[in-house]
Parts: sequence; structure tokens; C-alpha cells
Amino acid sequence: MKPLHLVKIGGKIAGNEEKIEPFLKSFAKLPSSKILVHGGGNLASELCSKLNIPIQMRGGRRITDRASLEVAVMVYAGLVNKKIVAQLQKNNINALGLSGADLNIIPAQKRQHPDIDFGLVGDIEVTNINRFFIKRLLDEQIVPVLSAITHDNDGQLLNTNADTIAATVAAAMASEFQVHLTYCFDKPGVLRDAEDNTTLIQQVSKKDVPNLKKKGIIAGGMLPKLENGFFSLQHNVHRVTLKDADNLLNDTGTTLSL
Amino acid sequence: MKPLHLVKIGGKIAGNEEKIEPFLKSFAKLPSSKILVHGGGNLASELCSKLNIPIQMRGGRRITDRASLEVAVMVYAGLVNKKIVAQLQKNNINALGLSGADLNIIPAQKRQHPDIDFGLVGDIEVTNINRFFIKRLLDEQIVPVLSAITHDNDGQLLNTNADTIAATVAAAMASEFQVHLTYCFDKPGVLRDAEDNTTLIQQVSKKDVPNLKKKGIIAGGMLPKLENGFFSLQHNVHRVTLKDADNLLNDTGTTLSL
Repeated sequence: MKPLHLVKIGGKIAGNEEKIEPFLKSFAKLPSSKILVHGGGNLASELCSKLNIPIQMRGGRRITDRASLEVAVMVYAGLVNKKIVAQLQKNNINALGLSGADLNIIPAQKRQHPDIDFGLVGDIEVTNINRFFIKRLLDEQIVPVLSAITHDNDGQLLNTNADTIAATVAAAMASEFQVHLTYCFDKPGVLRDAEDNTTLIQQVSKKDVPNLKKKGIIAGGMLPKLENGFFSLQHNVHRVTLKDADNLLNDTGTTLSL
Repeated sequence: MKPLHLVKIGGKIAGNEEKIEPFLKSFAKLPSSKILVHGGGNLASELCSKLNIPIQMRGGRRITDRASLEVAVMVYAGLVNKKIVAQLQKNNINALGLSGADLNIIPAQKRQHPDIDFGLVGDIEVTNINRFFIKRLLDEQIVPVLSAITHDNDGQLLNTNADTIAATVAAAMASEFQVHLTYCFDKPGVLRDAEDNTTLIQQVSKKDVPNLKKKGIIAGGMLPKLENGFFSLQHNVHRVTLKDADNLLNDTGTTLSL
């Protein structure tokens, strides 16, 4: 099968012009078919704060109300997505920015939870990803740039975690491509000591996770990345790597195994 | 040649949920290939005002600085575009929201002016529109939804008038399709008396314009619509109509002729 590089870039880098431009230059050099998934992170929180949109919590979890969804759509599907697309075009990559509503690429369902209404948050499934159109785009040398916005097919846009989108789209494409899923952020990978970049763990197996969690080595934002990574491996994704965005083209980082 | 309906919807309607939803239901019913171009109008000004971004004028003309371009990208290419796409998907239309940077559909050049720097405003040309990709999309029954954001192919997004995008894309597609260009807004068309909707002028010829301008019948936002309309007729667009968004499917409004 032909290789497909699916790269997820975190919000801290996607929203920072000085960091995203060199990253996109590297991304442009990746051989073969590729897809970029991005968050928007800090920029959305900053805009909410400027607009006095309060962060709403329910049951200890953040919920997405109408106003904060609109900010997410503006920042993720608008500003961050189109800046990335323009930069990739500059690097001779025929990028196409997409939300999940465009071409109905990523239909979602508003999250159902017995106790908590998370608001306008969309859950997605591997079998619902419109892999037919994604493959058509890749066959035309088009590079899809996916923002973390989905829709419910009934006219409602929804907010979906970008790590989850990356893993789910990777899994959906695994029947057609040898998929390499890479989570890029501002650390070299999973570190034994989060403060010491020389303590990289080169390989994390699914069975190591309970122990690593207990020791506090895997915590915070790393946990959903690993869960999503293992999920995609279970769905026949070929390789999952977590690495520093600066190292996209280098064979380094933490590789996951089942 | 096969017909192509290219419809431009004004910002007052595009940014108003109660008006845009019935409009999109009608748009979905238009037979044949179609393209929607939208502004964002009031919503962008409202967001600039909430964010205390001052409206900058130079030589009596509004200019687009970095902060107001970012708002335009968020509102036009983000919020308004994706809401329209989600509504069209609900109406079983396979919509694809695009800025000019996506697929390099609309490359532009930063406006050159001997005296005034208009800022991040893009001028576009018929011959530069990427009509190859637009036709490929239409051939796949995809409906492009174009926001009024372009780019300079050097990584910079630019603001471009939505009426001009509609006319220029219509002109570019006229070699492949019998193009019907429709400007939809909140008036029945060109009116003899702007306050009286019963005074519709059914046909305006290019030679009538100087007289209509002198009488004050064509003024304000109507003027660039007519200029763009005549421009597209000169580039072999089949028919140009100005009408109320509520009348999209009715044979009414003002038709232009050379």
C-alpha cells in the first residue's frame, strides 16, 4: 500500500506564526500523500477572553456553548486554517482547508452523556469518515488541512478534539494506505521527566501505560494523545509517533506499539 | 453549453440566520451546477467593534490593516462560510467552503495605487481564476461556497470584494458554461425610488447608466454591483440579474444588458 503521512500539529504551534512557518516548510517536504490536522488552542481562549465569553464548566469539564463554538469556528476553521493553507500554497503544496462539514468529510453526533450536557461537542466514528472523498483529493495531489470542527448533518457545527480527529481519520484511511500518524507538539515525545528533554522514551507499549500513569510520567495532554494513538494502531494504522514539531523530518520521538 | 448558476448573497442576509436558512433551501433547489459567493458584511464590522479595532480610512477610503483582515478571515472564511456549508449539507447539497487560497482557486495581487495604500486588499483577474479545479468540483456535483478572501501566493491572505469575486469567477467560467450570475440582496432589484419596492426597473442597459447615476437612481452599493455585472456580460456571461434573496427561484428582478 502507498504511504500516507497524517500529521497533527498542536495549537501552541499552529497559532504561533514564528513556529508554524518553518514547520510547514518541513511538512511540505514530506514525501507521498499527506494530511494535516490542526488545533487552534490558545488563540480561541484569547478571543473568548477578549469578547468576555466566560469559560463554562459542568461536572468539572469544560462545555461548549453557542458563543464559544462560534469562536472555535472562526479561529480553527477560519483564521488558523486559512493561514496554514496560504503558507502551504506558498510552499507549492496544493492545500485545501476543510471543516468536517465541507464535502461532509467528518459527520459527527452531538455528545450523549447520561449526566453532563457538554454542549456543542461532536463525537466521531471511524466508519463515518468520508474516506472516499479524502482519497479522491489525495489522488489529485491535494493536501487536506483539517480543522477540528465537525457537523451533525442537520445544520449544526460541532467542536471536536483535534487529536481525536487525527486518530479517527488515520484509522479510516488505513484500509487504503500505509498510514503514518504523527503528533507534533513542543516536546521531543514522551519524557521520563517532563522538565528534561534528554529523558525521551523512544517506545511506549500499550501494556506500559498503567505503570507510566501511576508514576505520573503520562499525564495531562499526553494521555489523550496516547489513547488516540493506540486506538489508531488497533485500527491498522501502521505507525504512530509523538515528536517535537521541529523534528518532523527526523527519525526521532516516541513510537507507540500495541 | 451546460448552465451554471453563480449566486452572490449579500452580507446582510449571509450573516442573518433567519434569512439565510430559507435562502439556502431555495438555492439547494436550483437545477444544474451552481456556485455560491457570500459576503459577511455587518458581522465583521460588529466583531471589529467588539474587539476595539478602529476602522481606518485613508483618502476617504476604508483600508484593511492586519487586525481587520484577521477579523475578515475569521468571519467570512470561518463563521459565515462554515454555517452556510453545514446548512447546505443539511439540504443534501455537497457543499465545499473555499477561500481563494484553497486549491489556489483565486490568486490575487495586493492592490497597487499611486497615492493610497489600501492595505491587505487583493485585486483579481479573470485569467488567473483556477477554473480547471472549479470545473472539476462542479463535474463531481460539488457546490463551491466562496468567501471573499484571496491570497497573494506568497503566504499573505487578502480581502477582496465579494461582488467582484462573483463577477470575475462568472467571467472565468463562461468559456465552459452558460453562466447565470445573480446578485441577491434585500431589495427587489434596481428601483426608481429606493424607498418604494413597486418601482422595479426590469432591465438596465449599460447605456442607461450615466443617466440613472445622474438622477441618483443608481447609487451606493448598487453601483459596484452594476459595474461588476456589466464587466461579466462583456466577458461572455449569459445573464446577469439583481434580485431579492426571497425571489431566487422566481423570474423577477432587474436584468442587465450591454
